[in-house]
Amino acid sequence: MRIIVYLFFASLFTLMSLNQLVFASAADMPKEQQLANEYMKILTSRDYEKLKRYYSRSSLLYDQTANKKFTGQRHILAFLKRAQKGVIEYNFNIEHMFNTGSLVVMIGNYHYQGPGDQFGKPGKIVKIAIPGVTTLKLDMNTRRVRQHTDLIDYQTMTDQLAEQ
Amino acid sequence: MRIIVYLFFASLFTLMSLNQLVFASAADMPKEQQLANEYMKILTSRDYEKLKRYYSRSSLLYDQTANKKFTGQRHILAFLKRAQKGVIEYNFNIEHMFNTGSLVVMIGNYHYQGPGDQFGKPGKIVKIAIPGVTTLKLDMNTRRVRQHTDLIDYQTMTDQLAEQ
Repeated sequence: MRIIVYLFFASLFTLMSLNQLVFASAADMPKEQQLANEYMKILTSRDYEKLKRYYSRSSLLYDQTANKKFTGQRHILAFLKRAQKGVIEYNFNIEHMFNTGSLVVMIGNYHYQGPGDQFGKPGKIVKIAIPGVTTLKLDMNTRRVRQHTDLIDYQTMTDQLAEQ
Repeated sequence: MRIIVYLFFASLFTLMSLNQLVFASAADMPKEQQLANEYMKILTSRDYEKLKRYYSRSSLLYDQTANKKFTGQRHILAFLKRAQKGVIEYNFNIEHMFNTGSLVVMIGNYHYQGPGDQFGKPGKIVKIAIPGVTTLKLDMNTRRVRQHTDLIDYQTMTDQLAEQ
């Protein structure tokens, strides 16, 4: 039974991945998804000069699973600089992406390699890959992020850190 | 290059699925996830007598991608009965699930087979499988759903319907 369930999911995912790859290479990706991709790349590349263009005074960064909120360009950037300090590798692998108008949903995995100080592992380099869903509400006129909401699987993170 | 990216995702998903299967069979699944599973099964089985126990007067059902909100047991049930009328098959295949306290996140696919009337296909039976993320805020004391939020890939739905 388990193997059947597994094969079912595996084939489903195969279809999803192929669909995503074909779609990602096509020029007809909705402009909202293009902007979301652009923003996520700059966010994870930690180019704060470029990144600040995506936030206004009223932009909201909300980690729903950690229940943390930051409002406005200044507070968001201060938080990100602190959180991303010393990071060696940081990226978001998007497995599936969709949008309804300016609401963009991205399902994927956050990959992180960097100092373990923030994770209770001082002096160590830790490496984690955690499932997450990031939702963006975009302003397509100003090309800014109105709201960035994260849902992060912190249990998987804790499990991975326990082995390091 | 594409095949490498594909293999990467496929192996990642293999690990995720196996992890999920092992976890799902374990008795130590967090009680919040157990309640979420129980609720999703009753929701998709369309047993409204059992389902109504999960909603209070202040429960909120929110489809963020369709921008539709229903508040309170009575309005939620009325909407669901209308939406699920005549359905032949309806279920949610959870690919990955996690929680932080009473906030439960489920990533998966909604499978639907039923009359196409609501989808602009009157007189036809349609079959769709659409990616979605469902987030539940639970009240663990009363075992009720405070808020049920859906993010649904309606573009995939439209694409699938176009071929039917």
